[in-house]
Order: sequence, then C-alpha cells, then structure tokens
Amino acid sequence: MDGSFLIGARAVTRDDTFRAIDPATNEALDPAFATSSLDDVAEACRLAADAFDTYRETDPETRAAFLEAIADEIEAVDGLIERAVRETGLPQGRITGERGRTTGQLRLFAKLLCQGRWAGVVIDTALPDRQPLPRADLRQRRIALGPVAVFGASNFPLAFSVAGGDTASALAAGCPVVVKGHPAHPGTSLLVGRAIQAAVRKCGLPEGVFSLVQGASNALGGALVADPHIKAVGFTGSRHGGLALVEIAQKRPEPIPVYAEMSSINPVLLFPHALAARAADLGKAYVGSLTMGAGQFCTNPGIVVALDGPDLDRFVDAAAEALGGAAPQVMLTGSIHANYDKGVTLLGGQSGVETIARGTEDSGVNRGRAALFGTTGAAFVANPALADEVFGAASIVIRCADKAEVARVLEGLEGQLTATLQLDDEDVEDARALLPILERKAGRILANGWPTGVEVSYAMVHGGPFPATSDSRTTSVGTAAIERFLRPVCYQDLPDALLPKAIQRANPLGLPRLIDGELE
Amino acid sequence: MDGSFLIGARAVTRDDTFRAIDPATNEALDPAFATSSLDDVAEACRLAADAFDTYRETDPETRAAFLEAIADEIEAVDGLIERAVRETGLPQGRITGERGRTTGQLRLFAKLLCQGRWAGVVIDTALPDRQPLPRADLRQRRIALGPVAVFGASNFPLAFSVAGGDTASALAAGCPVVVKGHPAHPGTSLLVGRAIQAAVRKCGLPEGVFSLVQGASNALGGALVADPHIKAVGFTGSRHGGLALVEIAQKRPEPIPVYAEMSSINPVLLFPHALAARAADLGKAYVGSLTMGAGQFCTNPGIVVALDGPDLDRFVDAAAEALGGAAPQVMLTGSIHANYDKGVTLLGGQSGVETIARGTEDSGVNRGRAALFGTTGAAFVANPALADEVFGAASIVIRCADKAEVARVLEGLEGQLTATLQLDDEDVEDARALLPILERKAGRILANGWPTGVEVSYAMVHGGPFPATSDSRTTSVGTAAIERFLRPVCYQDLPDALLPKAIQRANPLGLPRLIDGELE
Repeated sequence: MDGSFLIGARAVTRDDTFRAIDPATNEALDPAFATSSLDDVAEACRLAADAFDTYRETDPETRAAFLEAIADEIEAVDGLIERAVRETGLPQGRITGERGRTTGQLRLFAKLLCQGRWAGVVIDTALPDRQPLPRADLRQRRIALGPVAVFGASNFPLAFSVAGGDTASALAAGCPVVVKGHPAHPGTSLLVGRAIQAAVRKCGLPEGVFSLVQGASNALGGALVADPHIKAVGFTGSRHGGLALVEIAQKRPEPIPVYAEMSSINPVLLFPHALAARAADLGKAYVGSLTMGAGQFCTNPGIVVALDGPDLDRFVDAAAEALGGAAPQVMLTGSIHANYDKGVTLLGGQSGVETIARGTEDSGVNRGRAALFGTTGAAFVANPALADEVFGAASIVIRCADKAEVARVLEGLEGQLTATLQLDDEDVEDARALLPILERKAGRILANGWPTGVEVSYAMVHGGPFPATSDSRTTSVGTAAIERFLRPVCYQDLPDALLPKAIQRANPLGLPRLIDGELE
Repeated sequence: MDGSFLIGARAVTRDDTFRAIDPATNEALDPAFATSSLDDVAEACRLAADAFDTYRETDPETRAAFLEAIADEIEAVDGLIERAVRETGLPQGRITGERGRTTGQLRLFAKLLCQGRWAGVVIDTALPDRQPLPRADLRQRRIALGPVAVFGASNFPLAFSVAGGDTASALAAGCPVVVKGHPAHPGTSLLVGRAIQAAVRKCGLPEGVFSLVQGASNALGGALVADPHIKAVGFTGSRHGGLALVEIAQKRPEPIPVYAEMSSINPVLLFPHALAARAADLGKAYVGSLTMGAGQFCTNPGIVVALDGPDLDRFVDAAAEALGGAAPQVMLTGSIHANYDKGVTLLGGQSGVETIARGTEDSGVNRGRAALFGTTGAAFVANPALADEVFGAASIVIRCADKAEVARVLEGLEGQLTATLQLDDEDVEDARALLPILERKAGRILANGWPTGVEVSYAMVHGGPFPATSDSRTTSVGTAAIERFLRPVCYQDLPDALLPKAIQRANPLGLPRLIDGELE
C-alpha cells in the first residue's frame, strides 16, 4: 500500500501526510497517507461533473454490472480484513460479516436497477380532443441529481464507508461519487477505493465516476460540500459533524440536500406482561445488544423505559450482573474513547442519576468500560441532558411511576432511528396507545428484538425525524436509499427520437410504467 | 362576509384589521379583515397537532370523501368568482377556469388515495431459517409528516391558495393544514376557507385539520413556520420570500422541509429549421404565452435563445408587432406592478440590452405594459443580472453567434421550472446535444408548445433545481406532490394486532404491496 489517494483513474501522492493509529495500542501504522489538497478536491469534483451526463444515462444493466464488479473486486482485495481490524479495533468476525453486508448491498442495488421501478416512469397519454383544452403527452422519469459527496463513517469501515450504502445507492442512481475517507481508516479506504477504481476501468466508465480524497482536516470535507459541482451529500456520524455539513450546504449559492444520519438513543420499552414473564432474560439480552461492538452502533439501545416495580428490579439486576461482567472493548479511536468516558462521567454526575453497574476495569488503551445508569421518569423529563447520545456502551434505565409518565418520557424525546417494544399478547393494548407517539418519533419500530442489526432489504428504514437524520423522508439503508439521489423530470410532447430510452414509446428498457394512473 | 379568520371550527375576529385593494382601481374593499395574532397562530398549530394522530390514520376513503366534499363546497360558494376578480384584477374567465382546476385537483387526489400507491407498502417476509442470521418480518409504509403550513400565492387565488395544490396534497397525505392567506385576496381566502371548514364538519373530522390565519405582516408567516407543531411548509412566491421561510425553518431546533416554488425565467429555444419554417407564427404565439394573465405565471417565458440571423429577425419582428399592440393589463397588486416597472427599467438599462417593443401606453392604475428586449449571447453570459426574473410580461431575446454560445447561455442558467424547444424533425440532433444541459436545469422540458399552462396529472413536474424550487426532488403540481408530506416507517416483527391496517397481513385496505421485491 503506497499511501496515495485517488483522483479519477490516478493515484496521487502529496508531501503532507497523516497515519492511521491502531486504537488497540495507539501505535501509528504504515504507510503515511497523502493528505489531499483543496485543489485535489476541486479536481475530483470537476472530473465527476465531466462524467455525469454520460454516467447517468448508462443503461440500468450497465450500472448493475458495475456495482457487481465493485463487489467482486472488494472480495478479491488481499489483506482488507486485516487492515480494517488494525485500523478500527473491531474483531475479525465483525469485519468479515461487514464485508459480506457491503458486497451484498452492492448486489442488491444491482438487482434493483434491473427491476426498473427506481426510474419512476409515469406517462399521461395525449388527449388531443379534450375540451376545453387538449392534454399534451406527458412523460415523467427520474434522473440522477449530480455528483454526490460521501463521507466515510468511523464505525462501519466497509458498510458505511468508501463502498458503503451511500456510495452504492448514489452510483446506482447514476451519480458519480467523490468520497472523503474517514481519517481513522485510510488504509481500508484506499484498498476499497482501488477496488472501485478497478471496476470503473473494467466497465469502461468515465474515470470521474469515482474519486477518493483523504485527510484529517475538516476543511477538506467542507470544501467538498461547498464545491459547486456537488449536488448532494451522504454522511453518517456525529450530530455536530452532520450539522456542520448541513450548514455549509445551505449557505452555498445553490443549496443542496445533505443526508446526515446523526444521533439516536433508540428507546426500548418494556411492557408489564413481557417484563413479568422474562425480566431476567430481557436484562441479559439488552446488555448483549448494548455492548456489541463496544456499543458503537447508531441503533445502540441508549434508554430503557418501563413502569417501576419488582419486575423491573429483576430486569435491572440481570442487566447489572451481565454488564458487570462485560470485558472492556477497544473503541474505534482515541477521541471516541475520550468522548465516551466524558459522556459517561457527565451522565453519571447528573442529578437524579444513579450508576447501576460498570463493566470490568480497563486493561489497555482506548478500552470502553460499559456503563448502566438508572433514573426516574420525572428526572428524565426535567433534564434534556439525560437524552444526549453517549456514543458507546452506555445506557440508562428510566423508572416511570405510571403509564402517563411513560408517554411523557416518549413525547419529550427527539427523533430516533428506532423504537423497540418488549411485549406479550396482553401488552398489545398498552402498546397501541403509545404507537402514535413512536411513529412520530422513529423511523423503525420493532417488537421483541433489539435495535442493533439493520437488515439491508426493500422494506428497511434506517432514518427518522431530526436529529436521527437531517431528512426524515429517506433511509440510508435498504433499496429506498436510491431515492435520495434522484429527481423527477417531465417531458411534454417530445418527439420519440429525442426522448431518453427510459420513456420512449416502445419502452426499449422494459421498465415498469404507470400509464394514465394504472400500472401497465 | 364578516372579515373573520378561521381557527379550527371557529370564526375569529380581532380589532387589528386590514383590507383588500381592488388593483384595477386602488379602491379599498369591504369588509375589513381581522389580523390574526401570534397567539392565534399558536392556537391553530396546537389544534392541528391535536388532530394529527387521528386524521393521519383515517382510511384513504375517508380522506378521499373529505377532499371531494371540499370540492363540492367550493363549487357551492356564492360570489366566489366575483370576489376573486375584484381582489386580483384577473379576468372572470380565468378565475372560473382556475376554480375548475382547483376542484379538479382535489378530486384527482381523492382518486389517488383510493388507488393506494401513495401508502408505499413494502414488505420483506420473515426468513426464520436464514443463515447465519434469520431475517425479521419487515413492513414499510409511509405516514404523514405532521401539520403543514401553507402560504397562499398571489397569482393563483384559488389553485395555489387556501384550497390549492399544497393544501390538497397535504390533506391527502394525512397532514392537518394551517393556511396563511395571501393578504391581497383575504375575501377569496375566507370564502374558500369556510368551504373547507364546512367539509371538515360534514365529514366528522377533528376541527384542527384546517385553520386559516390572515394578515399582512411577515411576522405572522414567520411565526407559523417557526411553530414547533409545524413539520413542513408549502410556499409559492418570490425568491426573497421563499428564502426567508427556508431560513426560519432551518434555524428551528428541529429543522423542517420547506417546499418553496420561487423563481424561473423558463428558457425557450428556437431551433433553426423550426424558425425557418414558421418564424412569424412562433413570434406571435410567444407573445400570447408571454402576455397571458399579465405575464404573472411562474412558467412565463422570460428568455428566448436562438442563433442570430434573418429567421430570428422575422421572429422578433412578428413578436414586436404582436407585443406592440398588446393592451396593458391590471396586475395583481400595486407592489407587484411597481416591482414590474422597476424590473423592466433595470433590464432595459443594462449594457448591451435593447428595448425591442413595449405594449400600448398605460390607461389606468396598476397596468402592466408588456416589454420585449434583445441582447446577445455574449452580453447575457457576461451579466448575471440579465437572468433575474422580472415577474410580469417582460422577456428578452438572446441572439447567439453559434451553437457553442447557445450551450454557454444554457449552462450559465440557474435552475428552471421549464425549458421549451421549438423544433422540427431536422432539429432533433441539435436538440439532443442540448438535452443533457436542459435536464440538469429544468423540471419540465416541452416541445412545440409554450410553458404557461400546467397540467394537473400523474406525470406532471412543476419543480426544478434551485432557485426554481427549494427542493428539486419534488413537484408542487400533480399527484406526486403528495410525496412531499410523507415519510417511511418500518415495522419489524410487530404482532398483527398492533400493526396499522395499511400493513396488516390480510391487507384489509386492499393496498398495492411490494412483497420481497415483487409487486403482489
């Protein structure tokens, strides 16, 4: 690995460099990685704009073959798993699984392209004899927005990074992509970036379809979002980081959409009959979800809400026992670990918050020690700081005096990626009363499972009202993610010879079409 | 008419009042209209929030019947046409046609609701035996965003006002609506508002489903957008006004989407063969589109782009003759007329711009005198001020030296609602070369027609890149407008007894469903 970054078909080096740090040891890793300059960013964006008109009009099958080629290339990368493990501290099994998810979602978007619904073809046939005025022939399709900036996420070095869900859905839509790699895993980023670069070449696509810029400064990402060629942004990360990008995007002469997936504490509701039937099992399973991957999931269960009482005591006792025996885990970076420790200290020091249990003592650098807190519904409602996300394996159990207090706790929440219900048949009426609140607050509502683990499929919603995301009308996981990067265009009375293939009268692409309000 | 405004089921009066002005005479009209207070705005929003969970879960047939009831009530309003004519200066035939469009689009949304695609039901069936992990049962549907603020537009007192496209699509989606009536036509607004209020009552819906606040101050609209209960905004009007609302919406603790349809100069391209074949006819038809309704359409053809030469001379001569004989027309308000005059003076005074023709002299107050200007492609590209929208019957013909200059003129444009091609068969190759630019710039591309006149249908796109709208991914006319007010929610492993009807296993609403990637 040579520490370059990728501008179109080229590998570029610069004198200004940075290194990845192994979070398990704080050791700086070879090689040194070149920091892209602002000129490099501009060049990547210019190439993307040059490629756009050609790339967006490739046939769906061409783009599908490209996505599959990327998946194949990623599977063929030597040393990818090992490098990602070194750069993130995540276990090999997790990274291997994440690679499967990454290639799987590329192949799912390939399949989606061939199904053709994404093109959104809607036709109103001409009515030349209509009174008082004739109706023109109207044909709507969706086209790509333009070049897209994608920010790699620290916590999914493959599935939400260089060839992750944002890149896959943008490329599927027909948008060239300029990725800003996350500075915590530049080697992983470069290996995957080269796989995409190879696929671009093998598929004979314009080089500007993909570039990867790298560097540790915020200015680089800011310049990318501000570049006039960029027409949309995909981001997964902190609330602070996401909002900074949204602000830059809105201040442009031409504002653009930012799809930022930011902050969520993912409430878990324990209903009385479920709690009575299996409090201890629930307590153990909750800690399993909470501590998985050092708690570094967007969907980590950050609060548990339940009626106070002996059944909740049993849940808390089981959770405390499980968490008290949980070994510390390496976190993704030193600063994420430091922020976690700070967040845990802040939360534990809040009035009305008790520390129920901590994981075992740290035995090395950057180890996150799990933390379980407790408070009352009244205290939670009174203090918004208790609802701040602590990124990592920290969670708080909220004991409510009655059902009305449960509802008040939920109504007071900001937008969430998920809301989880632990319920038995006898709890359904109680759950029904709360469902409208949860629907207003969350993008996904799940029963008798745990929020960590996000299926990549047609029906998935990984999104939700602000601040879970910056745009609740979308999802960043699943096939519907493609819609973020498309816009409708209507063609009125154009001669067939001038129409794009997607809406020509003979339907040469074989796309599903809505004609005069009915599916063909 | 008593000059009240409408908060839920009530008609409210206040001491602070304002009056409509007949723009044809500058005469203040009776009655005086109560100005809503900021408390009134807050109360309307609170009622809307109270109504939301009930209203959004009404069956599609219930909401369809409600939209049809509104259409029926509007048709039954005595004196609506006369009042709208007095308040806008628009001709009776135009207003009558606009009423038909308004009721027609309410009924089209009713039909759309019954078709059920709007609900976006997508189901991934459980795969309990999948390895390495089972797949949960995942069910996605779309739910309403929440209460919506709608701003009445001055130029469509019915079709883009109290019961216009924004209101119809928001109500169809399941969103309660709080309308801020345009202060230029408060009587029209109240008459239509009462029709909606009556329909709410007759359909037995919660009163908060609709309120109408009125007043002339910007603070009122600002408070409406800032109200925490409001979750989206629909606006049609000036760039300045739209951007002000966008800024307020983005500065909220919870930012919300604003769908603002703002500014467009709607380029018309004349291709050589079409121009050679019918220059004079095109010139006349162009002026017809330009001067219709005193040029007060969002889709008014503000620039014409063509290769310089004798055929273009013939086009210009015919246009000049037609426009020179065009009688002045009453504009919507005194300030719109004053801004038009100012814009025409500014445009005519720009370096390199010649005044080709003006309409006949003004013969009364607030009459807009049509204006036709000419310039070169080089001058247009060099001076962005020539691309500023002048709202009214003003347009500029851009003479280009060659095809490359035509492309430069188009590439330099901001986002547009429409782009029009006048072409013959022999022009198709030239048009094909420019189509990618136009697709990037405009929401609707039309051939051999004129951009004024927007069909309300399935395939229509009345939208486009910034600043044509604040969100190019949407349309404000046509059935796709409903998508602006919906967001997806995913339900994972919920027991059938707890699922909303839209996604219950037996499909009691009979909605179209995508199951495991295939339409059922």
